[in-house]
Amino acid sequence: MTTAEVAKKVVELVRKQAWYEALDALYDDNVVSVEAYSAGGGSPETRGKEGVRGKIDWWVTAMEVHSFNASEPFVGHDRFVIQYDADVSEKESQERRQLSEVGVYTVKEGKIVREEFLPRV
Amino acid sequence: MTTAEVAKKVVELVRKQAWYEALDALYDDNVVSVEAYSAGGGSPETRGKEGVRGKIDWWVTAMEVHSFNASEPFVGHDRFVIQYDADVSEKESQERRQLSEVGVYTVKEGKIVREEFLPRV
Repeated sequence: MTTAEVAKKVVELVRKQAWYEALDALYDDNVVSVEAYSAGGGSPETRGKEGVRGKIDWWVTAMEVHSFNASEPFVGHDRFVIQYDADVSEKESQERRQLSEVGVYTVKEGKIVREEFLPRV
Repeated sequence: MTTAEVAKKVVELVRKQAWYEALDALYDDNVVSVEAYSAGGGSPETRGKEGVRGKIDWWVTAMEVHSFNASEPFVGHDRFVIQYDADVSEKESQERRQLSEVGVYTVKEGKIVREEFLPRV
């Protein structure tokens, strides 16, 4: 798949919140996933497809999603960017939050090898 | 300057279309600037601050800008992203176009060392 094809597939699956399907179809085994902030003082970097699966497990367990919107992708060479706007509640605290961030993805041989999430400041 | 400070300054200067001021204040001498497509079969990559100055010279000479909007920045670690939406006419052909793209910037020691422009697909 080209970078644009991977990008469009991510948008399609994220809009369905099909996180595991996206992971299995589009991610490289050695993907690096980077958050802007780390939870609980750990590293903001997660390495490997199974690490990303753990992030998804956490997300679907912890979050009630009221809405999750993905922009059309922006694409150039091996990179693409998607903007996400979400309205979620943490299930435990019932704290409701609006998230706005971009994902910056790097593709190699048709697979996502790096993703970085950058919140709006 | 932190990444967030550089990002906010870029937004401020781009909204004023102060391209040269942004270049002189915020860009590293060895910056690499990458377009999604190359003009006339050349390289999509421009190296060095003076190369980027040449891109700005071309832009201000060739383009009549009807509007140029910059989003608030998205920031994480050494990276930031800004979305641009512009309405421009090429002066020579009078062809009017709406541009929508993101800039993905990398910062090192308070200076922009890389910028990539990704159009919406």
